[in-house]
Amino acid sequence: MRIGFLGLGLMGSRMAANLCKKGHTVTVWNRSVERTAALAALGCAVAASPAEAARGADAVALCLADPPAVEATALAPGGVVDTLAPGALLVDLSTGSPELALRLEAACAARGARFLESPVTGSKLGAEQGTLVLMCGGSAETLAAARPLLEAVASKIIHVGPVGSATRVKLIGNTMIALMLEALCEGLATCQAAGVEPARLLEVVQASGYQSPYWSFKGNAILAGDFETHFSVDLMHKDLTLALEAAGRLGVPAPGLAMVREQFQAARAQGHGGADIAALARLWPGVGG
Amino acid sequence: MRIGFLGLGLMGSRMAANLCKKGHTVTVWNRSVERTAALAALGCAVAASPAEAARGADAVALCLADPPAVEATALAPGGVVDTLAPGALLVDLSTGSPELALRLEAACAARGARFLESPVTGSKLGAEQGTLVLMCGGSAETLAAARPLLEAVASKIIHVGPVGSATRVKLIGNTMIALMLEALCEGLATCQAAGVEPARLLEVVQASGYQSPYWSFKGNAILAGDFETHFSVDLMHKDLTLALEAAGRLGVPAPGLAMVREQFQAARAQGHGGADIAALARLWPGVGG
Amino acid sequence: MRIGFLGLGLMGSRMAANLCKKGHTVTVWNRSVERTAALAALGCAVAASPAEAARGADAVALCLADPPAVEATALAPGGVVDTLAPGALLVDLSTGSPELALRLEAACAARGARFLESPVTGSKLGAEQGTLVLMCGGSAETLAAARPLLEAVASKIIHVGPVGSATRVKLIGNTMIALMLEALCEGLATCQAAGVEPARLLEVVQASGYQSPYWSFKGNAILAGDFETHFSVDLMHKDLTLALEAAGRLGVPAPGLAMVREQFQAARAQGHGGADIAALARLWPGVGG
Amino acid sequence: MRIGFLGLGLMGSRMAANLCKKGHTVTVWNRSVERTAALAALGCAVAASPAEAARGADAVALCLADPPAVEATALAPGGVVDTLAPGALLVDLSTGSPELALRLEAACAARGARFLESPVTGSKLGAEQGTLVLMCGGSAETLAAARPLLEAVASKIIHVGPVGSATRVKLIGNTMIALMLEALCEGLATCQAAGVEPARLLEVVQASGYQSPYWSFKGNAILAGDFETHFSVDLMHKDLTLALEAAGRLGVPAPGLAMVREQFQAARAQGHGGADIAALARLWPGVGG
Repeated sequence: MRIGFLGLGLMGSRMAANLCKKGHTVTVWNRSVERTAALAALGCAVAASPAEAARGADAVALCLADPPAVEATALAPGGVVDTLAPGALLVDLSTGSPELALRLEAACAARGARFLESPVTGSKLGAEQGTLVLMCGGSAETLAAARPLLEAVASKIIHVGPVGSATRVKLIGNTMIALMLEALCEGLATCQAAGVEPARLLEVVQASGYQSPYWSFKGNAILAGDFETHFSVDLMHKDLTLALEAAGRLGVPAPGLAMVREQFQAARAQGHGGADIAALARLWPGVGG
Repeated sequence: MRIGFLGLGLMGSRMAANLCKKGHTVTVWNRSVERTAALAALGCAVAASPAEAARGADAVALCLADPPAVEATALAPGGVVDTLAPGALLVDLSTGSPELALRLEAACAARGARFLESPVTGSKLGAEQGTLVLMCGGSAETLAAARPLLEAVASKIIHVGPVGSATRVKLIGNTMIALMLEALCEGLATCQAAGVEPARLLEVVQASGYQSPYWSFKGNAILAGDFETHFSVDLMHKDLTLALEAAGRLGVPAPGLAMVREQFQAARAQGHGGADIAALARLWPGVGG
Repeated sequence: MRIGFLGLGLMGSRMAANLCKKGHTVTVWNRSVERTAALAALGCAVAASPAEAARGADAVALCLADPPAVEATALAPGGVVDTLAPGALLVDLSTGSPELALRLEAACAARGARFLESPVTGSKLGAEQGTLVLMCGGSAETLAAARPLLEAVASKIIHVGPVGSATRVKLIGNTMIALMLEALCEGLATCQAAGVEPARLLEVVQASGYQSPYWSFKGNAILAGDFETHFSVDLMHKDLTLALEAAGRLGVPAPGLAMVREQFQAARAQGHGGADIAALARLWPGVGG
Repeated sequence: MRIGFLGLGLMGSRMAANLCKKGHTVTVWNRSVERTAALAALGCAVAASPAEAARGADAVALCLADPPAVEATALAPGGVVDTLAPGALLVDLSTGSPELALRLEAACAARGARFLESPVTGSKLGAEQGTLVLMCGGSAETLAAARPLLEAVASKIIHVGPVGSATRVKLIGNTMIALMLEALCEGLATCQAAGVEPARLLEVVQASGYQSPYWSFKGNAILAGDFETHFSVDLMHKDLTLALEAAGRLGVPAPGLAMVREQFQAARAQGHGGADIAALARLWPGVGG
């Protein structure tokens, strides 16, 4: 497929590289042009604007930071949607709001193009190895058409339902992660204050019914003081804000989500916005390495 | 070993049965005598008082509802500790407070007896099959002496540290469970309000880095409306209260724990105290089966 | 002044009546036309559309339910702003977002008109008696020009700062009210559960340094089971949502606001959205009359 | 009256001085003896132990830091209660738990003495001027007997109900104060982040129905960076902990109280335990003077 790929952050750059390696013809664009060099070296074309990346593409993939970036890139006059050929695909790999996904679908439909929302879960490593998990929202036909693109970056593709539903599930999942992390940090802080070896806590957890690879992944990072960014505090805060707006609009009380968003807000206020979400632990002085 | 076993609730009755089946000589006691019949049928002796169950025993195991029950049974004048033979073992399988564990250790030491705290994690099924996980707090020597008893009920025994530390880890673990459950309930309520199939949420979760058997275990129970009690709302509330007191004494801010304890309090206020913790979902009208 | 008045809810209808009684020439509009009858009887003209109410007016006042209503009325093509004469005033008495206030200011400026944000505090009775308090955001000149209108409805006019600042202060004030109400409800529920006479609590409070007429106003309403709507749960929820969005954008951690918004969300989920905010007490079964 | 007065902290020293000035014969005791010097200079006798202060007294007043201090002083063998003459009065001016108040009442009754719980509200200035407010729990007869003592320190005496009820009301009142303070801090932090003059917020608040002298008292202290201790973060944290335990035992969901206790915990963790509760504002970097 001829693919335009927009957004070369932590995840996007790795996904674009995989598309290229799997034999697609890829044109990349990024807001700051420096990030395109590595992709150009792999054989990608580099576009000077979103529209240029979209022109003549069979599919355009977006992997951008937040809803305003998606709006500016895709929905602005003369932007991606205005440039899509009839029948072309727009695949949004970013995590936005259900409302934005529905607006993108409508804009594509008005143009005779097709839209698939497809937020991503997985690590940098998963992005590198093409083993991400994709949650897809859209029609079965659109999903089928997008498969060559999706299968180049993901080892698992889950059709959640119509457009909007995949974003909802993604935001819920990130809320679950955030609450696990809050629980973990409170637990590690309690261990430390009580003089209990935190490795014993992780050992007990992993022998229990609520075991999860995530406890060790983040627990070990915190104990090692390793806050290299896989998923930043700022991005999590953005997702929790979107999740809270969604719950609010639906009338669903969400005291856990509301509480934990303020914890991430506090982490940002203390200067950890760019660090990995594991840096939530910094709210408890002295916890971790 | 000659073992006195006190407390024949959901977990205790199954553990006592396993001790008996593994060849120990077991004398049981329970506050309400009806529960002793099934154990008597397996060949256990039935004691009329805690002291009678403790007299002459190599080890006494407690599996009681809460700290006041442990105090009344073990520490009251003429109770278990007053009856222990020199060198005998007291093993507390209940979940109490670190402070109570230290008092039990001191009382045993004053008597020339030995104390091991050993809270339990695992399900009714694990109790039945003898595959529980035990967190042990006490000296290595006491743990070694208690192994024949412990191995009859558990498939994994983790030595956390000195007396008090195992209870701390148990309370932290239950806080982690409670926050996972809150996250799950908020997520399922959001799915329902948005018309998203909740099974898709569970599918996505289990394909992700934060996967855990617990999401499916409780998620499926909620969706099926199956609130058969494995671990009751009342007991979880008791443990969260103990955890919050512990965090408070240690000076550890715990906004997640504080929030979720009130959620369980609200579930109790709405009449779900005796139901399984999955009934937390009842706080969101119409969620689940 | 010739004044167009849009929005005849609980507060708006009373304010419009006062404008009329003070000698202004008032043209009213309301989404549902039935509410205009009482004003017509006082001598107001009734407009068939927002634009008709705005045409030829010296000032247009908005008193609408929420930001989408303000947008639809004022900013839609052919709406109020498009109809304002050069030099005319737009006064927004609604509680919206700071961002919306800035957009209204810009739209008015583009038209050669002037904008004042002027959210209101006070009761129905204050609206009736013209003794409301207004928080004004805008230039000193615009405020001076609007005074004849403002003084017909308010006994106190506070110039907070530029456009946007008055809305911020209004949203903060409503958050303070919401947290007072949460504290009051928790206190009354504790009194009831403990068998303490709630009137004694109010007596102590009013003899203390944190006394406030609000404790008695809402405390007595709750104890009497009087939930006649002065300020509805739905409107408070809307304002808390706006306040939370504002805090989020500013990077201010607000765990109290976040918590209490979910309490109002829970009250809505239990069917109390249209009742007075005192109905928050309904979250505690059996509290109040 | 011959009065033994135990506990010469911020409030106690001023109350003891007033008792002396009003003509009572006062014997004081304090854990650290230095604090007794100023009272000795006023003519008080100084006792070497709690029992010595209680011996032969008509009434003994306690003004101690927390329940363990009250227990150690009053209930220990050979302590105050063991020394009370038949018919003598024990008046607890400290803020403890309802349970402790009931235990003190029972211990006094066993001795033929009488007990009145009488927690205090008011400032250092009120303590100095004898214009405190007392919440009293006990029988009408005991309250009548204690009046000469109470009227020397307070300008308002409210009979809440039987022993236990006054402590409950005191703890609820402090929860109300804590939530007001949280609301105020979040509001001031929002003003600062948005560039709104905080004095305008206070002006609006004091013109509104939720006005309270407390907003200005603490708001001005925060803006001035004046954290001189009237009521310390540590003491408030202690009271919120007692309030949360009380709510928990009564089965009352209290999400506001639970949230704000953790905020005070966080303030302690950041080193503000000894400062005035206004130092809660320090959780928002840069707020206040």
